[in-house]
Amino acid sequence: MNTIEHMTGVVQRYVAALNAGDLEAIVALYADDATVEDPVGSEPQRGIAAIRAFYAGALRLPLQVALQGEVRAVANEAAFAFSVSVEYQGRKTVVAPIDHFRFNEAGKVVSMRALFGEQNMHAG
Amino acid sequence: MNTIEHMTGVVQRYVAALNAGDLEAIVALYADDATVEDPVGSEPQRGIAAIRAFYAGALRLPLQVALQGEVRAVANEAAFAFSVSVEYQGRKTVVAPIDHFRFNEAGKVVSMRALFGEQNMHAG
Repeated sequence: MNTIEHMTGVVQRYVAALNAGDLEAIVALYADDATVEDPVGSEPQRGIAAIRAFYAGALRLPLQVALQGEVRAVANEAAFAFSVSVEYQGRKTVVAPIDHFRFNEAGKVVSMRALFGEQNMHAG
Repeated sequence: MNTIEHMTGVVQRYVAALNAGDLEAIVALYADDATVEDPVGSEPQRGIAAIRAFYAGALRLPLQVALQGEVRAVANEAAFAFSVSVEYQGRKTVVAPIDHFRFNEAGKVVSMRALFGEQNMHAG
């Protein structure tokens, strides 16, 4: 069983790594056999190579990421609401997902799902 | 596929029904074969009779429920952060879960999971 402190710390490191554009720090949080479904409803990325490529794409533009409220964590799972701001050609967009992490016994994220729809994407 | 408007409306009706202590309005949102895992990590309630009994217990004291931020909804799933305040023998407790709903094709909730841990329970 993962501790609440560990899972909350992973979420905080994830947010910090997104803000820093630190691809390897993000990838280090994931298990080799992890899946990333971002957004929910899309075909998941399967395995660490696909996950690295996915985040390399996401980090092409600088991201400003901020938690909204407290991290929820219990029983090898964590969920958190947050916002991601990105500027492209002078236009700012803010996406506001709720992410869900599932952890393995080694403390790595084995499943990430990012739940947001069109109504959660706003002009900044 | 459920529309975002439908799923967001169900979440809003759920919050309103919790605030009103309206057991039947809550139960009406669920499919007959739904499961409720509240909190995540506990044994799920299975089926509408078990779910009615669960909420009857939860509504024994008046609840004050408020959404925290926007409802996230896409692809037959919704997630939302919220707070639940309850007063018992003069002591107020605030619990802050993130709930996840999965919808069936009839627009009913077939799976509810409430993710919160000890660190998400606060003295009010």
